[in-house]
Amino acid sequence: MARIALDAMGGDHAPAEVVAGGVEAAKSGIDVRLVGDEPTLRGLLDDLGAELPVVHAGETIGMDEDPRFAIREKKGASVSVAARMVADGDADGLYSAGSTGATVAAAALLIGRLEGIARPAIANLYLMIPSGGIVLLDGGANLECRPEHLYQFGVMGSALSTVYVGKERPRVGILNIGSEEGKGRDLEKEAYGLLRDSNLNFVGNVEGHDLGTGVADVFVTDGFTGNVLLKAAEGTARFVAQIITDVLLGRESDPQTIEVTRPKLQELYDRVDPEAYGGSHLVGAKGVVVIGHGSSSRRAVANGVGLAAEAVERGLVERIAAGLGG
Amino acid sequence: MARIALDAMGGDHAPAEVVAGGVEAAKSGIDVRLVGDEPTLRGLLDDLGAELPVVHAGETIGMDEDPRFAIREKKGASVSVAARMVADGDADGLYSAGSTGATVAAAALLIGRLEGIARPAIANLYLMIPSGGIVLLDGGANLECRPEHLYQFGVMGSALSTVYVGKERPRVGILNIGSEEGKGRDLEKEAYGLLRDSNLNFVGNVEGHDLGTGVADVFVTDGFTGNVLLKAAEGTARFVAQIITDVLLGRESDPQTIEVTRPKLQELYDRVDPEAYGGSHLVGAKGVVVIGHGSSSRRAVANGVGLAAEAVERGLVERIAAGLGG
Repeated sequence: MARIALDAMGGDHAPAEVVAGGVEAAKSGIDVRLVGDEPTLRGLLDDLGAELPVVHAGETIGMDEDPRFAIREKKGASVSVAARMVADGDADGLYSAGSTGATVAAAALLIGRLEGIARPAIANLYLMIPSGGIVLLDGGANLECRPEHLYQFGVMGSALSTVYVGKERPRVGILNIGSEEGKGRDLEKEAYGLLRDSNLNFVGNVEGHDLGTGVADVFVTDGFTGNVLLKAAEGTARFVAQIITDVLLGRESDPQTIEVTRPKLQELYDRVDPEAYGGSHLVGAKGVVVIGHGSSSRRAVANGVGLAAEAVERGLVERIAAGLGG
Repeated sequence: MARIALDAMGGDHAPAEVVAGGVEAAKSGIDVRLVGDEPTLRGLLDDLGAELPVVHAGETIGMDEDPRFAIREKKGASVSVAARMVADGDADGLYSAGSTGATVAAAALLIGRLEGIARPAIANLYLMIPSGGIVLLDGGANLECRPEHLYQFGVMGSALSTVYVGKERPRVGILNIGSEEGKGRDLEKEAYGLLRDSNLNFVGNVEGHDLGTGVADVFVTDGFTGNVLLKAAEGTARFVAQIITDVLLGRESDPQTIEVTRPKLQELYDRVDPEAYGGSHLVGAKGVVVIGHGSSSRRAVANGVGLAAEAVERGLVERIAAGLGG
């Protein structure tokens, strides 16, 4: 049974919603260990009539603190204590919906990086894409990257694609402004050579619209571009769904259209609900780390803890390490 | 009547579709001047039973050529001849669906930059956003930027917002990975200070999902991020629309749903058809320049030429110059 250290103090709705999410995840058979202020967490568990192991951590890291500095200074921060549990073998994975920067720093400094990985990266997995699931990284852990980082993202993304999407030889593409070789900044031009000469299944440069076209399974880019792009894509998805919903279900529609389309749209939207994902993998550390959205509800937390447990059970970290050695 | 020099040799379907688009635009009262191989263009006009002024240009620039080098070497390239017409006062604006790089280079080197503009930029205008139209730049003319470029993009984007969206004091935001001050790379941090201390209506950092939330009218970013992001947003829009369409009109749907939803969806998709835009403004040159998508059909070309004529009539270049002086 996967043991997940849950940073109960991280997130906009922490600790109450996070504890409730942890309790929900535990019901599905995951060994959830709450990390945070013990009296507070015991009180919340009592309110829920639930029992979970609690590991005390008396400090928290705010969204406005410098992450690396805070991780070095605050040994008692909940995310730090949770990360040390993974480092010490007291947990197999860590979930936090707190400061992304702090979780990235805790993973790099306290859990430690896999050999051959200079920078852990945020990997976003989109399984709803009709062409098959895709992985994009970096989603924001490293705003500026060097060519070798993009190559390492390719290795890690390939492992994710194999583990979660079932691709044997995932196709890796560099996100770029055009598909021809020679396009882009020095970063993309130099990464092109590294990836082409690697043992990855490199398919060259791909473009923003290729996220949905099935030309690649793994998209690599720097964390600035990845973060801005993913949020734009998610915002656009909501916006387009809203426009279509308004046309079909809005006040200018008719009762018959509303009656026949409402259940179909509802079913679809439930299926693509971002809370069903629960979080993003932070890959490259010597342990499973899942980062939840700051606004995570209990359902998102439960799904995010589930994602971490699944990564443990499927051997994600071992698969990445094997890719680096190959 | 706006005089538009139309690069008849640029685009995947040039010259036939471009000439047909030019003829269509001329019917709506625009003074279209075709630029390209004269015998070929005369033959195409004869086939269409149409008459338009033709300016001969015997060379073309391929998609694989270095744009700046090609513009310097090929004095007789169609895009070069068209740009010189604008520079010499023989046309008010230029439209090309050929190599974007070549058009950018022709604008900078042959038409010339406005005083105070270091880098002309591709500005994308999205008028369908329910919160009101937005402008995003740079869409790909300058892959790497300095902070002062982002400021200049803010000035130019504000002029576009005023001219096309009717905003008196357009709100300018820097696309970033978070909304707090201090987020991002050195580029965003330094541009933050420049924009805050300018006379623009600066609203701080904005994120990818804010394209649809109405927090800003003008989004500034470097051309690499802008290009990848816009293509991802456009791809996502198509992809989400496709999923919803499949649910409502696909083989698992029922005749009643199909009957009531098909006309509503068709009307919506016609309204948001990207060909209706026709192109993007290249701003910062001493003349109107519109860049069409390489795959432009005759309808897209006609709309793009219309966009150029509208910019001339609304005094876009003069408005930008006034913003730079202010």
